[in-house]
Amino acid sequence: MEDSKLKKYQKEKDNLVTKIGYLQRLLKEYKVPVMVVFEGVHASGKGRLSNELLLALDPRYTCFYATHTPTESELRRPFLWQYFVNIPSNAQVAIFYRSWYSLYISMKNKVVDFKGYNGSKVLVKEMKDFEKTLEDNGTILIKFYVDISDEKRKEHLKSMTENPHTMWKAQEYDKANDDQYKKDIEEIIKENQKTWHIVKYDVREKVINEVLSTVADTLEKRVKEEKKKSESEAPKRDGYFTGKPSGTLEKCSSEDVITKEEYKDKLIGLQKEMRDIQYTLYEKKIPLIIVYEGWDAAGKGGNIKRLVQQLDPTGYQINTTAAPTDIELRHHYLWRFWQKVPKTGHVCIYDRSWYGRVMVERVEGFATNKDVNRAYREINDFEETLVNFGGIIIKFFINISKEEQLKRFEERQGDENKVWKITEDDWRNREKWDKYVESIDDMLDKTSTKIAPWYVINGNDKRYARIKTLEIIKSVCEEKLFDR
Amino acid sequence: MEDSKLKKYQKEKDNLVTKIGYLQRLLKEYKVPVMVVFEGVHASGKGRLSNELLLALDPRYTCFYATHTPTESELRRPFLWQYFVNIPSNAQVAIFYRSWYSLYISMKNKVVDFKGYNGSKVLVKEMKDFEKTLEDNGTILIKFYVDISDEKRKEHLKSMTENPHTMWKAQEYDKANDDQYKKDIEEIIKENQKTWHIVKYDVREKVINEVLSTVADTLEKRVKEEKKKSESEAPKRDGYFTGKPSGTLEKCSSEDVITKEEYKDKLIGLQKEMRDIQYTLYEKKIPLIIVYEGWDAAGKGGNIKRLVQQLDPTGYQINTTAAPTDIELRHHYLWRFWQKVPKTGHVCIYDRSWYGRVMVERVEGFATNKDVNRAYREINDFEETLVNFGGIIIKFFINISKEEQLKRFEERQGDENKVWKITEDDWRNREKWDKYVESIDDMLDKTSTKIAPWYVINGNDKRYARIKTLEIIKSVCEEKLFDR
Repeated sequence: MEDSKLKKYQKEKDNLVTKIGYLQRLLKEYKVPVMVVFEGVHASGKGRLSNELLLALDPRYTCFYATHTPTESELRRPFLWQYFVNIPSNAQVAIFYRSWYSLYISMKNKVVDFKGYNGSKVLVKEMKDFEKTLEDNGTILIKFYVDISDEKRKEHLKSMTENPHTMWKAQEYDKANDDQYKKDIEEIIKENQKTWHIVKYDVREKVINEVLSTVADTLEKRVKEEKKKSESEAPKRDGYFTGKPSGTLEKCSSEDVITKEEYKDKLIGLQKEMRDIQYTLYEKKIPLIIVYEGWDAAGKGGNIKRLVQQLDPTGYQINTTAAPTDIELRHHYLWRFWQKVPKTGHVCIYDRSWYGRVMVERVEGFATNKDVNRAYREINDFEETLVNFGGIIIKFFINISKEEQLKRFEERQGDENKVWKITEDDWRNREKWDKYVESIDDMLDKTSTKIAPWYVINGNDKRYARIKTLEIIKSVCEEKLFDR
Repeated sequence: MEDSKLKKYQKEKDNLVTKIGYLQRLLKEYKVPVMVVFEGVHASGKGRLSNELLLALDPRYTCFYATHTPTESELRRPFLWQYFVNIPSNAQVAIFYRSWYSLYISMKNKVVDFKGYNGSKVLVKEMKDFEKTLEDNGTILIKFYVDISDEKRKEHLKSMTENPHTMWKAQEYDKANDDQYKKDIEEIIKENQKTWHIVKYDVREKVINEVLSTVADTLEKRVKEEKKKSESEAPKRDGYFTGKPSGTLEKCSSEDVITKEEYKDKLIGLQKEMRDIQYTLYEKKIPLIIVYEGWDAAGKGGNIKRLVQQLDPTGYQINTTAAPTDIELRHHYLWRFWQKVPKTGHVCIYDRSWYGRVMVERVEGFATNKDVNRAYREINDFEETLVNFGGIIIKFFINISKEEQLKRFEERQGDENKVWKITEDDWRNREKWDKYVESIDDMLDKTSTKIAPWYVINGNDKRYARIKTLEIIKSVCEEKLFDR
């Protein structure tokens, strides 16, 4: 290339780099996460392009994620697990060198043997849901497909083969897979053309600037939107509560009791059956997800203790859900639950869960009605993902009466070994009982799906609730395990 | 067992559980991390015992970690990686079902093929250093070895084989390995008897209580010590600085410059050689760790950009070190760096690093002189761990004069594209220049080891520094890679 032309490209690039740096700082202030995807065949130049973008960004707020042949532990989690746990925080830009599209194509063509999935159609829906979830959450998603002429590509491959340090890399190249990848990815792009940027890798300096300027333009557009939004008046809060709960919880309520003798008789037998079920789940590599929600002092903790008492501790985990950490707050609310998705064959028990989003966060005003409605859809998608992967989900809401709660609060306060269990928060939540009822009704209505129904358990008699949950888990698992 | 005896055990157990719960809450307030290890042969009952302990603890502040056959990604990190990243925070109790001892024995007997290690002796030292690091950091470490009679064990194995749900587990049992494990672990314990609790698994109810009471006693003892410590006067702060730096930094300083032409001539060649080196490191599975420390505005960021400009972005990572997050603050200061230890064959660059502990944390008074001296030992151990695993470590301190720093600060303040780089903190740090010099001198004196020496680079001329660091990296890597 002529020296003058090179200088022109260089100057253009310097300006773009400065601009991207500036925009990245602004978007960090606006708390906007950014994801940039690079797809393209082997030796298409996507490494070079993604590195140039990486260099233009502030390394403190940038992460780079390369899709690789899935590791054993990735193969033991749902398809999109590695991507969801690596989404950027609202202060970050994340670059994905190859993405869920590459992984999808490998799975579709059985290059990667991902057990637990029946066909690849569900994966397409999961990818779509994933991108929607990200964008609804305010993420900027920029997808590049690097197109390269055969001639130019041969040049790349030749220099790779001729260099003794990269020869091994050329040898690893699997042409048949790569050709199939090209066919598949180009089809995907054709169907969704407007969500992709196709860049033609010809003159290196030119194509680098093309990528940088696409990124700069997209970020700039968003900065303008955010600026406008911040200047306009804050939207009026919609009424979160109608004061008219749908009555679902009440309808599910019943008075159930059990004698102490019956409890004793049944408990140890059920616990031992649970242990057998655990081993069978492990052998069959089926993950089991059990969600416990319920009022404060409903007896969730004690119930869970009975459930796990005879289990093998190497195969179950109790995840308690407390207030999110600073890092968790900077991510989509499902992010922290994705981190704790069980491996195949493991049992994961959640003492409170992602449903906090539509209960406490709604009642406390951290999530608007719009957020809550979005959350219903996202939660249903999330649970579908777990079921697609072969998982069993069982969701309990342990219900107690307002009087029973008061009795338990007072008992706790009077017992030196239990007084730590009761906090000011518990009393404050109690004052919001009606708002909680409305939220719970709504949640039960919107998230009790066929694949993951809610079981409302009467917890006024703790012993009854313990036996009941064990019986439900047993029957659901046996149905799935033994096709009864 | 007689009913009355059973009741006695049950009552004893209930009391122990209440006591442990109480002690756990206190130790959480005192910010004491607790680690409990269970070792023992197959079917020795350690699953049962560890589950009983788990049930006695508050699941919100308890984690359970089972040692498994190392996964691919664990095999690509140093021996103790999986344990260090899973140490408890200072609010947690962590139970380890099998531990580094089991892994060590598997490695020693080549059951697990951990590449990168020459012999198992270094592993013994690493385990010792690891436990010392934990205990110096205030961790309570309780190690149980579950001993079982052959007769009792046969009972366990029989019931496992006879149950159709656990039969597969019995089939997986590898007797030869287990016998070797027993021989090795008992030898290890014999040599360090007083650090282990040997519990004989005979009567289940009895041995459960024995474990619980050992834990309760150990926690209680510590609670008393912490209580005493908190009541006694806070120790007077030792003088952190003598005002007499050793002069090491000054001695390493030299005035070096390079012409713009020479810079241009050398840069691209070195960068391309770096790319070849990167591929060779990858092929040979050698991790490369490059640490950048230096004054504010020394040019670390720009230097790193030149280093990675021609690298393959799928094989390097820039880790910038900012103020620790809330979770990081609740762990040993090296914990967050263990999370970011590179995989085999990858290049990890640290823009600031674990040396923050002995520089900014010392100057700001977050680390006492005692902490700093402990940190020197722990850092040297940490770096030795990385080298034992086959890693290459290169450490740069980019040095600039106080005048040069002022010049750059003022330049930044005058440039609208750079003004964001300069903060109040930078000016505040500058006022503490002399304290930093003393800390840096001390750091260079104590942590410039044969396996991981410091390179002090004159950064007054940025171009010189960029070329110099590239040349050093090249020569160190080539020496290791090609035995030149």
